[in-house]
Amino acid sequence: MPWADLRAETVARIESPGKVLTVELDLSEGRLAYRVLRFGEPVIDDSRLGFRLRGAEKLERNLALLSTATDSADATWEQPWGENRFVRDHHNALRARFHETAAPGRRFDVVVRVFDDGLGFRYEFPEQSGMDEAIIDDELTEFAVHDPATAWWIPAGEWNRYEYLYQRTPLAQVTQAHTPMTVRTDNGLHIAFHEAALVDYAGMWLRRTEGQRFRAQLAPASEGWKVRRSLPFHTPWRTVQIADSAAALYESSDLTLNLNEPNKLGDVGWFTPAKYVGVWWSLHLDTETWATGKKHGATTANTRRYIDFAAEHGFRGVLVEGWNPGWDGNWFGNGYDFDFTRATYDFDIEALSAYAASKGVHLIGHHETACAVSHYEDQMEDAFAMNARLGIDVVKTGYVCDAGQIERRIDGGSASGKGRVVREWHDGQWNANHHLRAVEAAARHRVAINAHEPIKDTGLRRTYPNWVSREGARGMEYGAWGNPTNPPEHEVNLVFTRMLSGPMDYTPGILSLQGRGQAIQTTLAKQLALYVVLYSPVQMVADLPEHYAEHRDAFQFIEDVPADWSETRVLDGEVGDFVTFARKDRHSEDWYLGSISDEHGRLLEVPLSFLQPGRRYTAQIYRDGDGAHWRDKPFAFAREQREVTSADVLTLKLAAGGGQAIRFVAH
Amino acid sequence: MPWADLRAETVARIESPGKVLTVELDLSEGRLAYRVLRFGEPVIDDSRLGFRLRGAEKLERNLALLSTATDSADATWEQPWGENRFVRDHHNALRARFHETAAPGRRFDVVVRVFDDGLGFRYEFPEQSGMDEAIIDDELTEFAVHDPATAWWIPAGEWNRYEYLYQRTPLAQVTQAHTPMTVRTDNGLHIAFHEAALVDYAGMWLRRTEGQRFRAQLAPASEGWKVRRSLPFHTPWRTVQIADSAAALYESSDLTLNLNEPNKLGDVGWFTPAKYVGVWWSLHLDTETWATGKKHGATTANTRRYIDFAAEHGFRGVLVEGWNPGWDGNWFGNGYDFDFTRATYDFDIEALSAYAASKGVHLIGHHETACAVSHYEDQMEDAFAMNARLGIDVVKTGYVCDAGQIERRIDGGSASGKGRVVREWHDGQWNANHHLRAVEAAARHRVAINAHEPIKDTGLRRTYPNWVSREGARGMEYGAWGNPTNPPEHEVNLVFTRMLSGPMDYTPGILSLQGRGQAIQTTLAKQLALYVVLYSPVQMVADLPEHYAEHRDAFQFIEDVPADWSETRVLDGEVGDFVTFARKDRHSEDWYLGSISDEHGRLLEVPLSFLQPGRRYTAQIYRDGDGAHWRDKPFAFAREQREVTSADVLTLKLAAGGGQAIRFVAH
Repeated sequence: MPWADLRAETVARIESPGKVLTVELDLSEGRLAYRVLRFGEPVIDDSRLGFRLRGAEKLERNLALLSTATDSADATWEQPWGENRFVRDHHNALRARFHETAAPGRRFDVVVRVFDDGLGFRYEFPEQSGMDEAIIDDELTEFAVHDPATAWWIPAGEWNRYEYLYQRTPLAQVTQAHTPMTVRTDNGLHIAFHEAALVDYAGMWLRRTEGQRFRAQLAPASEGWKVRRSLPFHTPWRTVQIADSAAALYESSDLTLNLNEPNKLGDVGWFTPAKYVGVWWSLHLDTETWATGKKHGATTANTRRYIDFAAEHGFRGVLVEGWNPGWDGNWFGNGYDFDFTRATYDFDIEALSAYAASKGVHLIGHHETACAVSHYEDQMEDAFAMNARLGIDVVKTGYVCDAGQIERRIDGGSASGKGRVVREWHDGQWNANHHLRAVEAAARHRVAINAHEPIKDTGLRRTYPNWVSREGARGMEYGAWGNPTNPPEHEVNLVFTRMLSGPMDYTPGILSLQGRGQAIQTTLAKQLALYVVLYSPVQMVADLPEHYAEHRDAFQFIEDVPADWSETRVLDGEVGDFVTFARKDRHSEDWYLGSISDEHGRLLEVPLSFLQPGRRYTAQIYRDGDGAHWRDKPFAFAREQREVTSADVLTLKLAAGGGQAIRFVAH
Repeated sequence: MPWADLRAETVARIESPGKVLTVELDLSEGRLAYRVLRFGEPVIDDSRLGFRLRGAEKLERNLALLSTATDSADATWEQPWGENRFVRDHHNALRARFHETAAPGRRFDVVVRVFDDGLGFRYEFPEQSGMDEAIIDDELTEFAVHDPATAWWIPAGEWNRYEYLYQRTPLAQVTQAHTPMTVRTDNGLHIAFHEAALVDYAGMWLRRTEGQRFRAQLAPASEGWKVRRSLPFHTPWRTVQIADSAAALYESSDLTLNLNEPNKLGDVGWFTPAKYVGVWWSLHLDTETWATGKKHGATTANTRRYIDFAAEHGFRGVLVEGWNPGWDGNWFGNGYDFDFTRATYDFDIEALSAYAASKGVHLIGHHETACAVSHYEDQMEDAFAMNARLGIDVVKTGYVCDAGQIERRIDGGSASGKGRVVREWHDGQWNANHHLRAVEAAARHRVAINAHEPIKDTGLRRTYPNWVSREGARGMEYGAWGNPTNPPEHEVNLVFTRMLSGPMDYTPGILSLQGRGQAIQTTLAKQLALYVVLYSPVQMVADLPEHYAEHRDAFQFIEDVPADWSETRVLDGEVGDFVTFARKDRHSEDWYLGSISDEHGRLLEVPLSFLQPGRRYTAQIYRDGDGAHWRDKPFAFAREQREVTSADVLTLKLAAGGGQAIRFVAH
């Protein structure tokens, strides 16, 4: 059908502030759809809106418009920590109220916020007679991409987490994908689909129905429905980021934050962005173990060694995994033995906390639930209280499941017993709520959360700025034992997919370049660049202290690089190929650059125009050495220094699987 | 076969100065091949080298290496005019001498020059006993692209010229392509194949033989062979440009110039880069005619009007097509009536030249051959002498053929008669030589040549800097009457294909946006941007004076924009999607920016770091107006002004089919 014909049915329209994007709502024989135009050309074709509700007619027919209202905003707000200190929220908004013209006459609003580089929309169900709650069997929201496109994606619904290698396929060959899903049209438009503010709702997957048309597939609840909510309520925002380049796509991710509610915690000055070391890589190398015994990593003596190392090099945190009872048996899929308030016999947590404090170091807590989540919830409050008392102000949580799903006790059984449990999806409504219960509990004790095997990030760090980081993708440990391991393109894929959603605790810096009987597919310089490229306010210095001793030259950069930024620029990049970031330290006038490549070497021209004009900087360059190659010559590395200004253009040579890191010291 | 195995046969190797590219020569059972690695990874797989010679064995077996020699260069040379005043030639070179180990024992060298962003190689046949000449039936040079890739290309061999819409297809679906052919691998590498210094040889097409493997297909000579040469001789350079981005690919085109011989003409200060107007667009609109009669465009009165218009607005040249006898009959495919030394009865060339001179204006000559090339050659010397006498120091030549081929007289017939003629290809050895004969004849009279329906550009402007521009692709006239017309993506396609080879006389600036009963698929602002985007040292102001009078605001930019540059930067772009150029005026401190898009609108962030740091500039911005769209609202246009420095970042909004032009006036 020609575009012009469809327009005839448009009932509401909203343009972005710069008139770049237009969102139109359309009623056709009582069915509701939206479409997105950019500079007057279709980007998202007519896509249905609606629901299938339990015990009632589908809510998608016989709809009529009641009224519309528009609004606009142009505000700048400050992040307590982040990639940028200030975020601008510049959008126009449309509220369109709809009702069913036939019984049961239900009502809902569609609210759209449109920015120049993307949009979010959500459904809002107002209070209304005859409808106290909604049991949602399906959300019928569609996303139909107009132009032929390529997608970068991981499958959803087949397993519990997000730890897959990103696939690149024609968009029309995606099956069911997690969000963010990143799309590049043949015309060079970059689009990402995701959601913002996932609160008391099920996570959304994208199921392809035909061609390039996708439908929201909500993660199921154990009860069989997808979501159960009392009215009034609203859904999370469904977001579409739209940009002309990979770099601009990354930068458009601000809209996810803008669509979340402001900070509910007040001053979170008690959270300090920082680097950390810990008993971790050795566990993945299997030279130490989580379990007690002669290989136990979390011993008092070993931890003192890490505290000393951290203090010596200015790292704030020391993570210790395996510090608590529960690891000795078959914990995998059986988290009921985990105790989060007691340490193992050989880990003197009181003495270590005091020793750490004497050196300005903080232990980082570790709460592996093995997915016995109700069991964890029973202990959470006490555990965070203990953490706070011991100066443990960041906790890494874990949700490693056996059968693949979160365990939820539903019979009110005892705190110690297993009770009757049901299985929930990581992305389900119940687990979405669990994470917020944990984050809120932690906040009460001024503890920050870094969740592994988490629910995906939907920008809730704005509202709960103690939810500082998470995993949610294949991390560095796959380099240790993954089969397949992480290939050289993995981190570049992450930047333009997973990282669009928020910080990731990737745990970089393995300068030994060696896992458990397999090489990490990287050059040395690339490990340094990852500190700039993969943002997290808690950034691990993941290798063993003895390995860093062998690479003092390179290690200098890891000592220097901050974990908190006042400004971030993506200078250049292509999805899955390469990316170059520049970030400004939040506590000095120094800038840092990180550039990484996939399995191909790159020659990149980088104008230093991000530097302050007229100022001189010393560029401390950590680069791939001549002939460096992730496979053949990964340790080839050079450090050099030159004076630069904003008028200079640097040529970066990245080896195959390589990278480059630069500190610009301001004079 | 694994890569490592092939390496065992490598007989010679040369790395680029920055160790980015490696070219290896390989002998396998007496057969010669080359390959190209980048950062240690294959870009061009093993590709054969050799010839099929008439009356002798193929020259591709039983080969052995005699010796190798290497060389290197790092020199900077100055262009008399161009996109950049200075060009750096930084390469390493390898000469590998081969001979046949069996009879007839022929010898040849392969010479490779490798830059960080590409390479050229050629065959050199030294003097040798038993071989006085070579009749080349086929050149067997191959080009095999390693990674899956997309190609932008036009077909070769089916028609005589280059005036096709560029196709985008998988590389493995190309049939036979003209060069430059541009390729982007799925890994984001940009590659262009072309040739440099096409002198006394046949032009090379690229014929796909299997998968992503291509073989040189030389344009045939009328005699049946491809090339006939006496020894010693060498072939043109076969070039491969390799870069990480579309922008870097464009900038790598310098290697084509670097592979050409230095200026043979000495001081060419007599050529002045400039804009020109003329009796031209009216001919394509069919409101005036080339033929004499009541619609004749090239009348004395009409030309005086154009001279006045040029003088008033500071344009140096006035082109007049249809000024000479030969147009009144059926000239198409019959150029024997053309007289290049006499004007039509209603065109007082002497008086007009004097009138022009009195106003500082120069007529621009027009020599349409209709492909009767020998007929043209008979008159060339006299014609250029007349041009020179009348101040006509630029001549536009034309080679519009009927049956599609150049006519060459071979029986020594009279200058006026047709004689016995054979047909040659535009790309054939004879016509390649014709163009140089014309350029050299013109140079003797200090006349510059702007060839239409030319042979392709291979960088010979370095050696013959009076060969200032040419057509060689679909120009603006297809907007007037083309079926199909030029679509909005056409000029962006040109930038990353045709324009890699050198200047093009595209004849932009049709501010009326209207052809002969059809709209030009462009916005108003885009027409301005083309003056910066599509480089030519002779740049037409192509619309009618009365049309410019209706668009004074926009016309200001056309008045201001120079035709000669000291520096050129491609700031951003994607093949076929969009591109942004910044160029610095050669005669002032002003910079100019041009950005164009395809049928999609774009939002582009442009750091102004190319400006001189610390200096203030007034940015005179000519942009698409709100809601502009090539189809629906092409005249929406805004002019605005702001003060900027190199530290600013501009956001360019380009409409669908739109563009933006900016002059940065230095303070």
